[in-house]
Amino acid sequence: MQFTSEQRLDDVVYEREFTLDEIPGILWTPASASAPVPLILLGHPPLGLRRMYPRLVARARQSAAEGFATATIELPGSGDRPRWPAAEQARADLRRAMEAGEPVSDEIVDALILPLVDKAVPEWQAALDALLSLPEIGGPVGYSGGVISIGIRLAVVEPRIVAAGLFAGSFVPRAMFEEARQVTIPLHVLLQWDDEGNDRQAALDLFDAFSSEEKSLHANMGGHTGVPQFAGDAAARFFTRHLK
Amino acid sequence: MQFTSEQRLDDVVYEREFTLDEIPGILWTPASASAPVPLILLGHPPLGLRRMYPRLVARARQSAAEGFATATIELPGSGDRPRWPAAEQARADLRRAMEAGEPVSDEIVDALILPLVDKAVPEWQAALDALLSLPEIGGPVGYSGGVISIGIRLAVVEPRIVAAGLFAGSFVPRAMFEEARQVTIPLHVLLQWDDEGNDRQAALDLFDAFSSEEKSLHANMGGHTGVPQFAGDAAARFFTRHLK
Repeated sequence: MQFTSEQRLDDVVYEREFTLDEIPGILWTPASASAPVPLILLGHPPLGLRRMYPRLVARARQSAAEGFATATIELPGSGDRPRWPAAEQARADLRRAMEAGEPVSDEIVDALILPLVDKAVPEWQAALDALLSLPEIGGPVGYSGGVISIGIRLAVVEPRIVAAGLFAGSFVPRAMFEEARQVTIPLHVLLQWDDEGNDRQAALDLFDAFSSEEKSLHANMGGHTGVPQFAGDAAARFFTRHLK
Repeated sequence: MQFTSEQRLDDVVYEREFTLDEIPGILWTPASASAPVPLILLGHPPLGLRRMYPRLVARARQSAAEGFATATIELPGSGDRPRWPAAEQARADLRRAMEAGEPVSDEIVDALILPLVDKAVPEWQAALDALLSLPEIGGPVGYSGGVISIGIRLAVVEPRIVAAGLFAGSFVPRAMFEEARQVTIPLHVLLQWDDEGNDRQAALDLFDAFSSEEKSLHANMGGHTGVPQFAGDAAARFFTRHLK
């Protein structure tokens, strides 16, 4: 892990960009922490870190104010990272289906999401290795948001992640429902009830599939990107409850 | 409204029992309030105030600590209030169906709930008249919990109620779905996901039916009576957001 830039954004949060095996990432830490702090991995949709930066830094600032470090890495095939042909094909198929108003087939969803999960999850685990070796990062570790299938796989395979906040707002391959049954850590699942691009029933089925003894579904209005401020606050309290 | 007893329970909450047209009720106010406070009407299942008292006083204490007055009245046909034959018959039919493991018919649900709503709602409105005439009660007013159909009807017909926290844990007559479409105030709906005595799909359909621009569904584990403490805290924050 190599730090490539650092800056104190304000009195609350300190930002460092890094690369890890050529994957770009960002680490935010509380500007005033004196002891090692818990860590929240910030997931995001595959639109590129640069485009997602404003929303990520807002989440990072809120988390830093509550005493958490946060970190994120670029997803495979996003930002400046190399594309792979099958994913490009799947994205093109998805666009075509949506523009034609057709249902998005299981084949498209599988091609879009499954390789992304397979590639991304080991990278997030490697990032976790590197982040937890820093003296200012203690633990425990949570995972928050982004592509829900990545969150599910991480919750299953990565024992250092003790709680996850998931956003039920993206396509979920059927195979992930089986993995969801293996999830037992506390979950906080956000669903935008009136998210037209999202299959509400699939999101409810997925919530039902999780085996976690503590799981909460918070459904709100406001559309895909209109998560209310109070819903973000509730997710923050979930992490405070489980990581502090 | 006649007060029949009063006592300071502790440093937090002051309790007064009252009767209003022979209906028993309880009013709890913050022990240390200096100005008129907002009011939350505490709904409850039709099991009698005496039996519900421990849970009600716990909700009243939490609300008083946050600066709210709370009040409740006995439901028609509960506690020492006179039964009416049709309700007794409906309760017996319900018991029989549940003991036989049979589905509870629409007829039973209608007979059980609709007359209760028709009788109870004007009584809660009369209680509201009396409570708001007290100098220590200001407003705004919220309604919380209990028989969800009573909450729905109150949200439709009583403009002084500006926010409602509803518990999706009881039978809902089909006719109430139409009334739900007329609800436009902010709603916080609690659903116990693994509540075996409750029809989850009906609860989700009901949530969908509400026309409120702000509505949140919080689904948690723990069974019908096992609402987690953090879910109660979230409901309290909903009222703080809307009544303060």
